[in-house]
Amino acid sequence: MALLVEKTTSGREYKVKDMSQADFGRLEIELAEVEMPGLMSCRTEFGPSQPFKGAKITGSLHMTIQTAVLIETLAALGAEVRWCSCNIFSTQDHAAAAIARDSAAVFAWKGETLQEYWWCTERALDWGPGGGPDLIVDDGGDATLLIHEGFKAEEEYEKTGKVPDPNSTDNAEFQIVLTIIRDGLKSDPKKYTRMKERLVGVSEETTTGVKRLYQMQANGTLLFPAINVNDSVTKSKFDNLYGCRHSLPDGLMRATDVMIAGKVGVVAGYGDVGKGCAAALKQAGARVIVTEIDPICALQALMEGLQVLTLEDVVSEADIFVTTTGNKDIIMVDHMRKMKNNAIVCNIGHFDNEIDMHGLETYPGVKRITIKPQTDRWVFPDTNSGIIVLAEGRLMNLGCATGHPSFVMSCSFTNQVIAQLELWNERKTGKYEKKVYVLPKHLDEKVAALHLGKLGAKLTKLSKDQADYISIPVEGPYKPPHYRY
Amino acid sequence: MALLVEKTTSGREYKVKDMSQADFGRLEIELAEVEMPGLMSCRTEFGPSQPFKGAKITGSLHMTIQTAVLIETLAALGAEVRWCSCNIFSTQDHAAAAIARDSAAVFAWKGETLQEYWWCTERALDWGPGGGPDLIVDDGGDATLLIHEGFKAEEEYEKTGKVPDPNSTDNAEFQIVLTIIRDGLKSDPKKYTRMKERLVGVSEETTTGVKRLYQMQANGTLLFPAINVNDSVTKSKFDNLYGCRHSLPDGLMRATDVMIAGKVGVVAGYGDVGKGCAAALKQAGARVIVTEIDPICALQALMEGLQVLTLEDVVSEADIFVTTTGNKDIIMVDHMRKMKNNAIVCNIGHFDNEIDMHGLETYPGVKRITIKPQTDRWVFPDTNSGIIVLAEGRLMNLGCATGHPSFVMSCSFTNQVIAQLELWNERKTGKYEKKVYVLPKHLDEKVAALHLGKLGAKLTKLSKDQADYISIPVEGPYKPPHYRY
Amino acid sequence: MALLVEKTTSGREYKVKDMSQADFGRLEIELAEVEMPGLMSCRTEFGPSQPFKGAKITGSLHMTIQTAVLIETLAALGAEVRWCSCNIFSTQDHAAAAIARDSAAVFAWKGETLQEYWWCTERALDWGPGGGPDLIVDDGGDATLLIHEGFKAEEEYEKTGKVPDPNSTDNAEFQIVLTIIRDGLKSDPKKYTRMKERLVGVSEETTTGVKRLYQMQANGTLLFPAINVNDSVTKSKFDNLYGCRHSLPDGLMRATDVMIAGKVGVVAGYGDVGKGCAAALKQAGARVIVTEIDPICALQALMEGLQVLTLEDVVSEADIFVTTTGNKDIIMVDHMRKMKNNAIVCNIGHFDNEIDMHGLETYPGVKRITIKPQTDRWVFPDTNSGIIVLAEGRLMNLGCATGHPSFVMSCSFTNQVIAQLELWNERKTGKYEKKVYVLPKHLDEKVAALHLGKLGAKLTKLSKDQADYISIPVEGPYKPPHYRY
Amino acid sequence: MALLVEKTTSGREYKVKDMSQADFGRLEIELAEVEMPGLMSCRTEFGPSQPFKGAKITGSLHMTIQTAVLIETLAALGAEVRWCSCNIFSTQDHAAAAIARDSAAVFAWKGETLQEYWWCTERALDWGPGGGPDLIVDDGGDATLLIHEGFKAEEEYEKTGKVPDPNSTDNAEFQIVLTIIRDGLKSDPKKYTRMKERLVGVSEETTTGVKRLYQMQANGTLLFPAINVNDSVTKSKFDNLYGCRHSLPDGLMRATDVMIAGKVGVVAGYGDVGKGCAAALKQAGARVIVTEIDPICALQALMEGLQVLTLEDVVSEADIFVTTTGNKDIIMVDHMRKMKNNAIVCNIGHFDNEIDMHGLETYPGVKRITIKPQTDRWVFPDTNSGIIVLAEGRLMNLGCATGHPSFVMSCSFTNQVIAQLELWNERKTGKYEKKVYVLPKHLDEKVAALHLGKLGAKLTKLSKDQADYISIPVEGPYKPPHYRY
Repeated sequence: MALLVEKTTSGREYKVKDMSQADFGRLEIELAEVEMPGLMSCRTEFGPSQPFKGAKITGSLHMTIQTAVLIETLAALGAEVRWCSCNIFSTQDHAAAAIARDSAAVFAWKGETLQEYWWCTERALDWGPGGGPDLIVDDGGDATLLIHEGFKAEEEYEKTGKVPDPNSTDNAEFQIVLTIIRDGLKSDPKKYTRMKERLVGVSEETTTGVKRLYQMQANGTLLFPAINVNDSVTKSKFDNLYGCRHSLPDGLMRATDVMIAGKVGVVAGYGDVGKGCAAALKQAGARVIVTEIDPICALQALMEGLQVLTLEDVVSEADIFVTTTGNKDIIMVDHMRKMKNNAIVCNIGHFDNEIDMHGLETYPGVKRITIKPQTDRWVFPDTNSGIIVLAEGRLMNLGCATGHPSFVMSCSFTNQVIAQLELWNERKTGKYEKKVYVLPKHLDEKVAALHLGKLGAKLTKLSKDQADYISIPVEGPYKPPHYRY
Repeated sequence: MALLVEKTTSGREYKVKDMSQADFGRLEIELAEVEMPGLMSCRTEFGPSQPFKGAKITGSLHMTIQTAVLIETLAALGAEVRWCSCNIFSTQDHAAAAIARDSAAVFAWKGETLQEYWWCTERALDWGPGGGPDLIVDDGGDATLLIHEGFKAEEEYEKTGKVPDPNSTDNAEFQIVLTIIRDGLKSDPKKYTRMKERLVGVSEETTTGVKRLYQMQANGTLLFPAINVNDSVTKSKFDNLYGCRHSLPDGLMRATDVMIAGKVGVVAGYGDVGKGCAAALKQAGARVIVTEIDPICALQALMEGLQVLTLEDVVSEADIFVTTTGNKDIIMVDHMRKMKNNAIVCNIGHFDNEIDMHGLETYPGVKRITIKPQTDRWVFPDTNSGIIVLAEGRLMNLGCATGHPSFVMSCSFTNQVIAQLELWNERKTGKYEKKVYVLPKHLDEKVAALHLGKLGAKLTKLSKDQADYISIPVEGPYKPPHYRY
Repeated sequence: MALLVEKTTSGREYKVKDMSQADFGRLEIELAEVEMPGLMSCRTEFGPSQPFKGAKITGSLHMTIQTAVLIETLAALGAEVRWCSCNIFSTQDHAAAAIARDSAAVFAWKGETLQEYWWCTERALDWGPGGGPDLIVDDGGDATLLIHEGFKAEEEYEKTGKVPDPNSTDNAEFQIVLTIIRDGLKSDPKKYTRMKERLVGVSEETTTGVKRLYQMQANGTLLFPAINVNDSVTKSKFDNLYGCRHSLPDGLMRATDVMIAGKVGVVAGYGDVGKGCAAALKQAGARVIVTEIDPICALQALMEGLQVLTLEDVVSEADIFVTTTGNKDIIMVDHMRKMKNNAIVCNIGHFDNEIDMHGLETYPGVKRITIKPQTDRWVFPDTNSGIIVLAEGRLMNLGCATGHPSFVMSCSFTNQVIAQLELWNERKTGKYEKKVYVLPKHLDEKVAALHLGKLGAKLTKLSKDQADYISIPVEGPYKPPHYRY
Repeated sequence: MALLVEKTTSGREYKVKDMSQADFGRLEIELAEVEMPGLMSCRTEFGPSQPFKGAKITGSLHMTIQTAVLIETLAALGAEVRWCSCNIFSTQDHAAAAIARDSAAVFAWKGETLQEYWWCTERALDWGPGGGPDLIVDDGGDATLLIHEGFKAEEEYEKTGKVPDPNSTDNAEFQIVLTIIRDGLKSDPKKYTRMKERLVGVSEETTTGVKRLYQMQANGTLLFPAINVNDSVTKSKFDNLYGCRHSLPDGLMRATDVMIAGKVGVVAGYGDVGKGCAAALKQAGARVIVTEIDPICALQALMEGLQVLTLEDVVSEADIFVTTTGNKDIIMVDHMRKMKNNAIVCNIGHFDNEIDMHGLETYPGVKRITIKPQTDRWVFPDTNSGIIVLAEGRLMNLGCATGHPSFVMSCSFTNQVIAQLELWNERKTGKYEKKVYVLPKHLDEKVAALHLGKLGAKLTKLSKDQADYISIPVEGPYKPPHYRY
């Protein structure tokens, strides 16, 4: 692997697929801006005061058109930005090109190898001699993970001189992480230590990444403050739910053109993502079966007319399988062998371990026929019957389509901007310790409010008398913290 | 008013409309039992050990068929029970008769006056010389209110000899409460004091009642422990949402037979109740417009294709108006005057102050034409155009139909039983202080689990490995406390 | 049976349940008028010219509030009217009372025996010495049937002196028909002959009744012209579909209060009625399974995400069974024995032979427990498990609720009025032979147009240029005759 | 224009974009075959007897993957085939390449100019010296049009020596047609005459093309028999409805990535196509407004909760506009000027004259910004606000996505195969005159039946007794001809 960083005429580093797509990317960014009122409002409200002046922000988040609007919002508020994608298939190359040319250092392309992926992550975190980053925008927690693992290795190395051993794990991806850290240790044994000392904090936006943060908080190993953006209502109840309701069928259609009506769809997991997926399939005319471990979510599915069964019950009858659990080992190769010919198997959870790709790839005699990028038919030798796997088991909405649409990402990303501002503004006050925080409800409500006008909505105003009657301020927040929406 | 308590042959007190309906009530109770697996499971699991042995439970909760199954579950676990309804129109007289005859002391009938209502509440709280109640099952908090107001008056009376003055308020209903307390003070100036001292706690199941409890907790005036059953997921996200989705159209149809398809429906408030109502109207083919004060709920409505406007914007174009806010003064007489002829106005929130009935009743020249009980046409003199008001502005699903169906009430009431058990079992441990508590998540999940079998659902089991991967116990609870479902 | 005809002070005959309900009926009729713009427009447009002056109209059609508005529309246009219901459970007694008191001769009450039913039909057809009727409004074809059977018997009697033998059939209901005819033959052996000679025609509004008419046309036995109102688009695609979508859940709720969400519903037949029923159950949160004989309708069901199986496949797993086929022997007693405890079995097709009530009633040891009128639990001795049968297997939406709502019935009944006008106006032109006709499309479109304003709709106008481009008149009709909507 | 026909090694003619995509096309064809059970059944049932032996079939129908399966089915039954697309944007280049390489003479590529389009049509009709075609498969009627116009010109030329004058019309496309005919006249003045004499018939599958045929039948100018495949239930009620429900959002997403939820969508026309489009938008969370000229369709829209207004009422508030009328001049440039910035304007009706592209293109100062192929932003100079037009006003689902999915096209195309077989088998019997026919219902039902197994459906069988009761054969057809489904 000899990946070379390139530079723009202005000297900014980047590595993208094709710089000639920058104009196309710019046009789509301009369209997206109209759909992202929350981010554009941030530019209007905060742009003039340049609150991020001096801040170096590293982002590890799907390098899409919507993310481009986020990046340029951070830049418009004064930040310097370096970026990588958080998934090997999720980059939109025209978006990456436009940003690389115009606004920030980008290291991302669609179809990275895992080694390239971690190289990109490392590049995004490397601010050179001046040091940095000050802030991290994370999605899934890989940037955060690399720093934590790097710092751990540096501590160990300082104490014992030992370097990480990639062979200590059989997780192929983690081997790469350890290799990168090991290789860097000799040239600079304090790189991650300096980073964690400088870091003001991270804002993280996925269920999966947040879970990692809470575990680190529980273990006492969290190295810097974190804001859990995922659990803003305007994130998890919007992007996860309505975003997936939009992008699951989009991915299915672009990848396979299959008619959804009349089919049997199985949705593994009925959390926010699963609810969006099940709704999408049902609305498109499929019959939907849900698998769940949680009796409450299962009962919700039943109340919507969905059947709740186990994967084993339905594996040989269903046409479309979607994993949304955030857990591992959901669809195993033994399940896949029992499926109907050309059953579609895909994942819309953050990580790719929901589907047993390893089991599939190593199944004796299995044959992989690539229909087109991110759409593979795998044929089992015994049955001569095939299944269609999308995006190699990774996030199918980003791998096979363009991810969530701009409007809902504007909600998520406005939370990110607000979280980043909060961390940066409070960097000297000690307000945030090495813990995980959620944004206060009035900011959550503000994010929503910024998105109403675009849709022509008019809010009702509480009278003082009414507000007193239900004991809330006229201007909100309108709900107690535990309210579930 | 000369209401006389009657007695069964066994000597149990009651006051119901028509004891001859007891057989009919019993038949419907038997049907309901089949639909209420949670309650029936409680009987199976806890019945043999008679955990409520010695407990005197007063309930103030719509005296319906479903409540009958709750009451007989409490009785089956060993409790002695006295009951009143928490709404003047919500009693089902055959249910009341069956319970009065067979199981508990009941004071309730459909169409009580407000004075009768509070008389019933007082009766349900009056356990005679032996004292009681030990526990309260509350809905809307009226039983709790009476004790708190009673105790306050007794304190004042002891200190200063002053009795409450009904004329100190112009709330007609509160005047009645004060009158009752005043009249009782002389004969027994320590009645409520003894009550509050004996009381182990209350479990409360509505948004509205819970709000009152939190306010008392905040003010430091809460007199005994309270369990907020409303905020169990299996209560507020089920009964409020799916219950109303069922019972709103039921009430509309029974009261007016109006075709919902093609109509314009306005739902004031898009909380759980509002979500259920809006879904019901939309599914029935109405065009739905939501009014909201909370931008987050407003944005949720928009994502479902509902329009969000103010009442003023649509008052003269809509056909059906439903209030679900839990706030007061939502639809005022000035709104009603501008409505289309025969627009339907109804409330499904707990209290009847969402609709300005007082303004309507006192509007000069207004004419009330009772189509049938709980369905009135009010004609304005200036336009000669009328509106149809359901259940006199009170809970229309209970006033005009039979409330939520058994299955979803089984979820709510199983929470009630579990909460009552928890309070009673811990009565001597000091676990519960004079605060408001919610049930722990594993009990919430248990309630859901008890309802899956009836619907033919099969849960997936986590492997130990998977459970460890997402850091939860194999047996749950499966979600963090803040999870929103 | 000694049924006595009563008379109003004005001398008009009637037989209803309770004349004291007339005021209540009047109030509901007034509400319904606001919801029936088509009929009210007919009064405005045609009332002044009294086109039905001299016409005697007999109707055999569910004596509901909506029908009351139809009757009074016919009367407002100059007709004299006699009426009976076409189903033993479908009369609304307050509607019957109001009409009997104010507008027409009515013979109908809720809960007739079959003998009473046919007595009523005979009364409605008996215009006394002056003769009549001139026109028939029919629903299901029972009035038409009686005349055809009567005439057949009279022919036979004249030729051979033979009278009909009720024992020649084992259809219990048809025995009654033959008895009535036989008993009348002696006193007046030309009654039906005179009737058929005078009759200008019939307009029939159900799929079932229309099928009978086409069979008679095919056999050459049709005695007078018939207009098939059922196949007006504004009838079968509205009343059958949207009416049942409304009234199926209404009937289920009123009869059983059962929660529909989460249940498995089986809809036998996926025609217009079945489509409405399946949509209603699905929207309410049930999982719906369709049974069909017709592959096209089956494929439609699949495209809506419904499962298509046979009754045998699902009989022991479903919770709610609805027959909509217009065929007989759909749910047999052997099916019912295999159902879950308290499974609900009901029919919304015109005749009661879709459910094997005879098999159920005569099943050895079966026990019938009447929960309330039209809601029976039948318990099988072997399993001690019961099923709930609605309206004794007859039209459950009329037996257990109030039938279709006014607005959609306004469409159907405006077609009836127009058909009656057409028959009457052309009575001397020979335009209509002894055949079955449908209304021309421009009248069908007119019916629809009369209902748009009430719902706030605005039509787009074709330009002349556009109309020419698609070769239709600017004013319509807009579609070719075979268009399916 | 110098378009050159190319030849495969086997000597078959073609002109496609890129032969190297043939392998990719083949893979997708294989996937589609699994989704097209109707066509595959035809191969199984009829393939062995080679019924099309000797038949030369020309098709003018979107050259997609699904059409490829149709073409290869015709070939598998013995036909020789030449093909062109019936829309300049609808060809899928990989499908065209695979067919050109493997199965038939193809003249089609995505993004033809209008001149190229008609060149392709001419090529597809030109079977060389041996003559042909024998049969035409048409979509929109352009192949049929060319023959009819060509024959008309040849008649005129023979009589008067006059050649067509392209300047006699100002329809730009028709000028091209006339030019082609004129240019061919001299070299071969009997080409179309020979064609029409040889032609056995055409099967046509769109509403638009069928309308043309009925007009020609009415005028007496139809030159050969035609089967109207569009009005098979399994065509117009499936492909038009469920196909568009699938492919409208697909096209919107691929072209713009816009979030549909929360938006206001306007659907012009509520026929089968409009119903599918409106359903799709509503299900995706948009608020949908319908414009209609036909009161019946308008009332249907209202019953589904859709608002019915005129375009003028909503032009400045809506976000997405879709034309489905089959009429012209629906959205004019003056409408477009009033739209919101970035409103999306698209057409899913057959022809591109629903949207006033000419008015837009020639609007003074208007600026066209091509975001990507088939997605253009048009900016008006006065407002500096832009609208987004998809596929240059042509069929957006084929221009921006891949058209209808395979399963539903299998229904449509099985009708085509059956129609072609019928025409060919009866070519000598005189069964078909120069008129327009629809397929008999039993064939329509057969098409449906062939598609049930794939979706796991099981039909119920009528008993003889039941069949007799409703007077239909046990094996169907199950419905009268006028039945509307």
